[in-house]
Amino acid sequence: MRLNQLTYGFVGLGLMGGSLAKAITKYVLAEENSTGKIYAMDKNPSSLEDAILEKTIERGFSENETKEMLSLCDVVFVCLYPKATGEFLAKYQDDFKSGAIVTDIAGVKGQLMENLNWKRSDVTFVPGHPMAGNEREGFTHASAEIFQKRNYIFMEPVVSGASSLEFGKNALETLKQLATSIGFGRIIETNAEIHDHKIAFTSQLCHVIASALVDSAEDTNVTAFGGGSFEDLTRIAMINAPLWTELFIADKKELVNHISEFQASLETIKAAIENEDSEKLNGYLSNVRSRRIAMANPK
Amino acid sequence: MRLNQLTYGFVGLGLMGGSLAKAITKYVLAEENSTGKIYAMDKNPSSLEDAILEKTIERGFSENETKEMLSLCDVVFVCLYPKATGEFLAKYQDDFKSGAIVTDIAGVKGQLMENLNWKRSDVTFVPGHPMAGNEREGFTHASAEIFQKRNYIFMEPVVSGASSLEFGKNALETLKQLATSIGFGRIIETNAEIHDHKIAFTSQLCHVIASALVDSAEDTNVTAFGGGSFEDLTRIAMINAPLWTELFIADKKELVNHISEFQASLETIKAAIENEDSEKLNGYLSNVRSRRIAMANPK
Repeated sequence: MRLNQLTYGFVGLGLMGGSLAKAITKYVLAEENSTGKIYAMDKNPSSLEDAILEKTIERGFSENETKEMLSLCDVVFVCLYPKATGEFLAKYQDDFKSGAIVTDIAGVKGQLMENLNWKRSDVTFVPGHPMAGNEREGFTHASAEIFQKRNYIFMEPVVSGASSLEFGKNALETLKQLATSIGFGRIIETNAEIHDHKIAFTSQLCHVIASALVDSAEDTNVTAFGGGSFEDLTRIAMINAPLWTELFIADKKELVNHISEFQASLETIKAAIENEDSEKLNGYLSNVRSRRIAMANPK
Repeated sequence: MRLNQLTYGFVGLGLMGGSLAKAITKYVLAEENSTGKIYAMDKNPSSLEDAILEKTIERGFSENETKEMLSLCDVVFVCLYPKATGEFLAKYQDDFKSGAIVTDIAGVKGQLMENLNWKRSDVTFVPGHPMAGNEREGFTHASAEIFQKRNYIFMEPVVSGASSLEFGKNALETLKQLATSIGFGRIIETNAEIHDHKIAFTSQLCHVIASALVDSAEDTNVTAFGGGSFEDLTRIAMINAPLWTELFIADKKELVNHISEFQASLETIKAAIENEDSEKLNGYLSNVRSRRIAMANPK
């Protein structure tokens, strides 16, 4: 079936779920001859009302109607916090429609995969991580445009039984097509272990550093003396505290290692400054410049 | 005299000098009835040629012609590296035109002011710091637009003799008008000590952190797993190594203190993650969020 003929279900219609739903509405279901539709459930009834009024979703479902919604959906996006994602998949595993594709957006995958006890051979779970977002929260701030040129990471499809391998591959292909359709620029396929290792650096460590930098400011008036650097480094410190508390702890081992490596790099440059070692400092900064320029165009 | 009737001289026509010259050409000298002009000297003759061809400056001067240029200019921008700025002011102090206003752009002021032995009572030196720039270098990348809504910091005017105080005040007023004319959004008046303390945090510490973060990356392919946070935190790590080596060492005392405070904040959040202390982590991040939101609108 084509992407514009599928029924999509969103479990959680916050910033990420809402943005994905809006992007699918705009870039997939607005096509001519489209017969697809979007359903959604959210603990906040007003998000569902808003989404219906602006024609992002066709119908909202209450928590009591979860099974009904799942029985109707070809593709289900579970857009909850990491722990809640695992709980949802455990509770409703038997209720997905036969043939359905289920995916999630949790920012840490190791814990989720360890506890996932997937028994369905007719439903594929494809762990996913759309690398986008902003410092705001909730459906009100959702936007169809936040995925443009971003990275979407998929883990290997999970489906029970060796005979279902081809089925799992097809599910992944469908999600990759969908991701490209809504603007993602790059699809990365990896496993949970590599994902959690890499994300601990590019995402979690950055949030830790930005937060520590804001914490260390002597007052909140510092930006009067700024040239934009401080603002750029700390924009992500307008952080969703409960979500990131979960993410940091879920990826604790990898994250703590990355923090330690960063601390060592910081100590090296600090020592060069303290010793007024111009030569060493100049070498360190020249090397950093070359590395950062290389990073602007990843392979 | 009005701003569009003055002769401006640039000592150094790199990214900053070039951008200031372009902005004055565009926003001040393009006015009707303008009789003002811009002269410049630079060690790179092709920068001067480019600037003449695109009508940013009227004439370029070689190093041998420094005194001639200075004798003609009402306002002189010394746009050199910090050490070279001090050396230039020492060498040519006697050669500025009587009545001239001299300013600089050095990112650290304490050392400069300590070594400045200003004897002119008919020429005012106003230490300045336009808080703008980008990760590129040289006149080729200069732009009239990089100052829009930025901060321009001025230190107290320096002029010899008590009777010249009013004269110094007028010089500062002229530069403030000029800064506003070319797009700066906010003028801050302070002294060298406060400047160096604040800038060590908002600018130098941010560059140190961005550099250490790039240094600690295990490879240069990390951005393939990024969602934009790493890129935002490390854009300034495409650093001009010789310039920042000078700046870090010139502001060593303040900078090292700020690094230590940042290290303490980082250690606090790291410990909370290691101990899986959700309550403490959530409190830390909530506080950071509130502080960062307050910082978005400095008093």
